[in-house]
Amino acid sequence: MVCHMENYSPVLNDVFHALADPTRRSVIARLGSGSASIKELAEPFGLGLPSFLKHIKVLESSGLIASEKVGRVRTCKLRRGNLTAAEKWFNEQRTAWESRYENLDNLLTTLKGEKGES
Amino acid sequence: MVCHMENYSPVLNDVFHALADPTRRSVIARLGSGSASIKELAEPFGLGLPSFLKHIKVLESSGLIASEKVGRVRTCKLRRGNLTAAEKWFNEQRTAWESRYENLDNLLTTLKGEKGES
Repeated sequence: MVCHMENYSPVLNDVFHALADPTRRSVIARLGSGSASIKELAEPFGLGLPSFLKHIKVLESSGLIASEKVGRVRTCKLRRGNLTAAEKWFNEQRTAWESRYENLDNLLTTLKGEKGES
Repeated sequence: MVCHMENYSPVLNDVFHALADPTRRSVIARLGSGSASIKELAEPFGLGLPSFLKHIKVLESSGLIASEKVGRVRTCKLRRGNLTAAEKWFNEQRTAWESRYENLDNLLTTLKGEKGES
């Protein structure tokens, strides 16, 4: 079937939208090596804090990260679940391509068999 | 290093932007099982042709699909290269998480060693 329900997942809309930005991808990559404060995360980008916080907000609402404020410090951590959902979508596409080539192979074999060439 | 160059790839910006829409993900999934005409692709969505063509344009400019017009029929096919680039990005994140746990293990071992040396 063409229109698998997983293609309609609002989670995937939000996750792919969040990942369509280089700053946000870098934040995800950074958090992959451990939790970090907003200040630490913002440092490499040379963005004003309000601009940077907008990116954090997009990442948080996509479910890719979570943040917690303790005292004056807000710490972010990766939530791997939705990232894994997106990764799974790619795996499904790959499985489809690969089975397609297998099907073509089988078809060729069948056709050859019918012609009596094999 | 935190800000790997691959996070700044404009290809990934375009690919993730293209995938942030359920219609476009469904078209990619459909093309995974073989090339198709615009008409065939549009059929399941109940969208007007102009709206559907906008999606096709986004997919084409992201490099995820290519199209060719022969006579009056425009046929689309998947270009797997950029989809693979995006898949690779996920694999890299996973490798980072997995090596993180390994690094924590190594760090603990090193700290134990240093305490023993002093």
